[in-house]
Amino acid sequence: MKVAIFFGSISDKSIMKIIAEVLKKFNVSYKSYLISAHRLPDILSNAIKEIESEGTDVIIAGAGLSAHLPGFISSKTILPVIGVPIHCNNNNYGSLGGIDALFSIVQMPKDVPVATVGINNSYNAALLAIHILAIKYKNIRELLIKFRIDKKDKLTSEIKQHLLS
Amino acid sequence: MKVAIFFGSISDKSIMKIIAEVLKKFNVSYKSYLISAHRLPDILSNAIKEIESEGTDVIIAGAGLSAHLPGFISSKTILPVIGVPIHCNNNNYGSLGGIDALFSIVQMPKDVPVATVGINNSYNAALLAIHILAIKYKNIRELLIKFRIDKKDKLTSEIKQHLLS
Amino acid sequence: MKVAIFFGSISDKSIMKIIAEVLKKFNVSYKSYLISAHRLPDILSNAIKEIESEGTDVIIAGAGLSAHLPGFISSKTILPVIGVPIHCNNNNYGSLGGIDALFSIVQMPKDVPVATVGINNSYNAALLAIHILAIKYKNIRELLIKFRIDKKDKLTSEIKQHLLS
Amino acid sequence: MKVAIFFGSISDKSIMKIIAEVLKKFNVSYKSYLISAHRLPDILSNAIKEIESEGTDVIIAGAGLSAHLPGFISSKTILPVIGVPIHCNNNNYGSLGGIDALFSIVQMPKDVPVATVGINNSYNAALLAIHILAIKYKNIRELLIKFRIDKKDKLTSEIKQHLLS
Amino acid sequence: MKVAIFFGSISDKSIMKIIAEVLKKFNVSYKSYLISAHRLPDILSNAIKEIESEGTDVIIAGAGLSAHLPGFISSKTILPVIGVPIHCNNNNYGSLGGIDALFSIVQMPKDVPVATVGINNSYNAALLAIHILAIKYKNIRELLIKFRIDKKDKLTSEIKQHLLS
Amino acid sequence: MKVAIFFGSISDKSIMKIIAEVLKKFNVSYKSYLISAHRLPDILSNAIKEIESEGTDVIIAGAGLSAHLPGFISSKTILPVIGVPIHCNNNNYGSLGGIDALFSIVQMPKDVPVATVGINNSYNAALLAIHILAIKYKNIRELLIKFRIDKKDKLTSEIKQHLLS
Amino acid sequence: MKVAIFFGSISDKSIMKIIAEVLKKFNVSYKSYLISAHRLPDILSNAIKEIESEGTDVIIAGAGLSAHLPGFISSKTILPVIGVPIHCNNNNYGSLGGIDALFSIVQMPKDVPVATVGINNSYNAALLAIHILAIKYKNIRELLIKFRIDKKDKLTSEIKQHLLS
Amino acid sequence: MKVAIFFGSISDKSIMKIIAEVLKKFNVSYKSYLISAHRLPDILSNAIKEIESEGTDVIIAGAGLSAHLPGFISSKTILPVIGVPIHCNNNNYGSLGGIDALFSIVQMPKDVPVATVGINNSYNAALLAIHILAIKYKNIRELLIKFRIDKKDKLTSEIKQHLLS
Repeated sequence: MKVAIFFGSISDKSIMKIIAEVLKKFNVSYKSYLISAHRLPDILSNAIKEIESEGTDVIIAGAGLSAHLPGFISSKTILPVIGVPIHCNNNNYGSLGGIDALFSIVQMPKDVPVATVGINNSYNAALLAIHILAIKYKNIRELLIKFRIDKKDKLTSEIKQHLLS
Repeated sequence: MKVAIFFGSISDKSIMKIIAEVLKKFNVSYKSYLISAHRLPDILSNAIKEIESEGTDVIIAGAGLSAHLPGFISSKTILPVIGVPIHCNNNNYGSLGGIDALFSIVQMPKDVPVATVGINNSYNAALLAIHILAIKYKNIRELLIKFRIDKKDKLTSEIKQHLLS
Repeated sequence: MKVAIFFGSISDKSIMKIIAEVLKKFNVSYKSYLISAHRLPDILSNAIKEIESEGTDVIIAGAGLSAHLPGFISSKTILPVIGVPIHCNNNNYGSLGGIDALFSIVQMPKDVPVATVGINNSYNAALLAIHILAIKYKNIRELLIKFRIDKKDKLTSEIKQHLLS
Repeated sequence: MKVAIFFGSISDKSIMKIIAEVLKKFNVSYKSYLISAHRLPDILSNAIKEIESEGTDVIIAGAGLSAHLPGFISSKTILPVIGVPIHCNNNNYGSLGGIDALFSIVQMPKDVPVATVGINNSYNAALLAIHILAIKYKNIRELLIKFRIDKKDKLTSEIKQHLLS
Repeated sequence: MKVAIFFGSISDKSIMKIIAEVLKKFNVSYKSYLISAHRLPDILSNAIKEIESEGTDVIIAGAGLSAHLPGFISSKTILPVIGVPIHCNNNNYGSLGGIDALFSIVQMPKDVPVATVGINNSYNAALLAIHILAIKYKNIRELLIKFRIDKKDKLTSEIKQHLLS
Repeated sequence: MKVAIFFGSISDKSIMKIIAEVLKKFNVSYKSYLISAHRLPDILSNAIKEIESEGTDVIIAGAGLSAHLPGFISSKTILPVIGVPIHCNNNNYGSLGGIDALFSIVQMPKDVPVATVGINNSYNAALLAIHILAIKYKNIRELLIKFRIDKKDKLTSEIKQHLLS
Repeated sequence: MKVAIFFGSISDKSIMKIIAEVLKKFNVSYKSYLISAHRLPDILSNAIKEIESEGTDVIIAGAGLSAHLPGFISSKTILPVIGVPIHCNNNNYGSLGGIDALFSIVQMPKDVPVATVGINNSYNAALLAIHILAIKYKNIRELLIKFRIDKKDKLTSEIKQHLLS
Repeated sequence: MKVAIFFGSISDKSIMKIIAEVLKKFNVSYKSYLISAHRLPDILSNAIKEIESEGTDVIIAGAGLSAHLPGFISSKTILPVIGVPIHCNNNNYGSLGGIDALFSIVQMPKDVPVATVGINNSYNAALLAIHILAIKYKNIRELLIKFRIDKKDKLTSEIKQHLLS
């Protein structure tokens, strides 16, 4: 198991499941946890110990509002932690557009870094995990190089289809 | 001991010591802790248990940047937690003016409330603690009533001194 | 009657009624008032005197836009006042997402504190009132401890249901 | 006495005294009050009644942070109220640059208008008062027309002095 | 004719027509102009001269985006100008929520004041015009006093209907 | 071919095609490219060389989020580059309203200027290109003068239709 | 005379004179005007006519706060107008950091485009003017190509000097 | 050589050199480049190829304003790229406090991830690189574990020294 995915609220699930989809494309094993940093801090601490003992390489954590989950996890582990600021517009609380979550994740104080990606950009979080794993695992590096080439080919083929008439 | 004061960084000390000054005016006992939520989570958990066992009524916590300390404490206790967003302009990190700390403290998710005051307004945090203690302790309530009257008298006497010529 | 709830506009009602729902779960008596600070200042002053004479412990006030209601009430009482910044998107005025209400409530000047919660987070305002009452009333403290345990049990049971496949 | 000037804090005085300077140029009588809306609400109410009974035409009120003073006054009178959002950078509290004061003054709810000017622009507040008075008093209108012409002459004469070499 | 209403774009009409509705309640005569400051500057200059010659007392101007209309008018007249920042969400351009229009109107430089109201708050702009006219016209003052009393009676009667059950 | 249009994502197409519509009105030839600066940098470099060799005068580039396309192009050419910050609200990523794209385009460092227009204002980008071309091509200048006159006539005729009743 | 430079306030002069320095490097003739759009609108209109009659190609205009000067000029001419949002921190008014000026310039409505550069980036405004002139004047194009090469050579030579030891 | 450091402007050097200091503590070899993405794109492309061929594992890139450097590098390599948004207040351009750089780096579109840290937080960028390297190199992992323990010991010893008297 190479990647552990954490999220704090059921409402974050639709954004976070995109991570699983990307990791599968690269045949990267993962495990996921719905655990709120604020509401289940002890279970979260145990889960972090568990995944460390299982040889996990990278952690991805997503949260909204005063989003403490990624920073909390980073304070408990030496694994690299990728943070996804989540903006949910299906409830009463999302009126700041995710800038609250972004600041809560990216402005971490010294000594507790979180590798932050864009608001709701769980796709890039997964891809960043792949880039990190690629420095260690040769097969992932090869898949990533191929992924880049395929992506370029696909985008190149689309240029002509989208001329402005 | 009625109030526990937590702050996460030495650079927050000048703002947080104002709390001690206010509490002393109301003869309210307090204890203070310099403990980072991110860097010493276990010592922080123990300190929270300690102050609970000593009969503390209110907690005040101040932090800057991705300010997780007040929320972290609130997740660990049923005592009311007052949060002070801190903006420090003596280092390289304060360029957002404390709005990062404000969002990280006030936008807490459901179930983990933090009573937030204005940026750097540790004075009001202390006074809010006094207002809360005053619902339980009659002598504090009487001091608070007197404090309000004295304050009004002082401000009333100043009106005439500050006419615009 | 332990809690008094104030709100300034009919459009705030749907957010504020969540407070009543939470308080009922803790068997905490409350009273509610729809009174605008700007449009009925004298009736508001009288209502504050009324609830003080009835032994109220905590006040919760919600307002939007240039949200002065919580601060106005705080200036008239020594009871702790919890403020809820409200963002209403059912009218023409809500285009700033509640940041106007947040600043109008949280950035109170010295001497007039308001315990501010997140935008539209009336649920947390009610829970914060419960935390404050729990320092005075033993039965509420016990209910709050039980509430926390039940919440943890419920969230723990949900972890397995929300694995990312 | 045609204009009443209110401000809430001694730290606002240096900005607000510019109003007196402008009004004197137009021979407009004024009266000033240092009264905090939050700390001396009853004295403020009395002062408003006083100035109304004295035939005041326009009120100018300045305040910082959660700036409630202009709106509070507007709720108590039918005189037009001009609001000046104040940003003070001589203390710990001004880190938001006055945007908190601006939102607290300009985003007033329906029925309680405040004529808001720019942050710290007490000069324009005084001039706006002159424009309002000029619809009622012929001599002020004539002075205002002359003021505009003199200003244009002065600015016209400066054009040549400030060529970029 | 006492009030002149200017707006710069057809998309502002739905917000601006509320002004006409309010003025009618106070029997205040008005005239309206759809003239863009940027696209028809000369026709706008002529319209301002026209309304000045007709004895207009107050001008209300609404605009969105880089909203120059109120300031442009203020530079051309000594009548008091009320500015309404407009946020239109029916097109591609409104993504900043009207904060662009607010800054473009309220932050006017020295010598050219605009009496700014809240975003989309044309209702308050009309009422502010009434407050200004009331310093000159006794019958409007009496109507305004009656309006305030009726409003208070209406709001007072609603308090009981909106108790939180 | 006088104008080259670049955009980085299919989701930007609906905003960018407005440019083609405007250019056609002025009989200005154009060519369009869907090429992401980040995903196809080499193809983009080649396209820039191609359009330069074809005598293009002006480039218009639109992008959203961390919008690097206009700046990237400007670094590769001496042709004037017009940048359109794009806000797309049809996906999960647009929660900042385009302010991210605006800052990414307009705050270019020294030596690499981008002529930035308003968020989603591709119409103005096209018109700005026309203004630039008009300093070189007499026939475009004449069409632009005519366009302005026609626009004024149309807007003048609409004034009467939009009186507020 | 190829470029006309406008600015609205003496306090903008130190930023705007950088434009003259850049233009001189390219031997581009210019003329400058200190004319406020709001305070001297008629003189400004005449100046625009004057520079048009003199064959000016490009206009650069800088302004702060509610910065209307660039848009006002654009509404009066078909020459391309480059706008410089100016942030001045030597007075009481600059507390918003120039974001007010940026929005007032870049968010222009349809039909009146302004080519906006970064806050205080008068240097880039001048260089953008050079890029525009280079599509018409071959000698400027050659100087610009040389300028780019020299700049690259200079920066290339500095790489080695700034290794982090 | 394990880490490559890129920055775009001499004014970023004081922030970026902190990275070298941190890396040295962990005996991690590095190489640094002062290359602007916009001004030397081809030299930058070559440098990226060079460091890839030398077996570099992680890249750290810092930039201010419209900060394209980290994203540009990410588009050219499959190495993980850490981005540092830089706010420089020693020049005219830094009035937005680095929020422009933050958005330009963190809001990267799909497929081109950048691991973003807080504004000016080059220290955390270096530490994040160490965390990433630690998944591959056992000796770095051991040093990191020791670093954490030493840090905790140091902070623990400071708790008592900073009691609020």
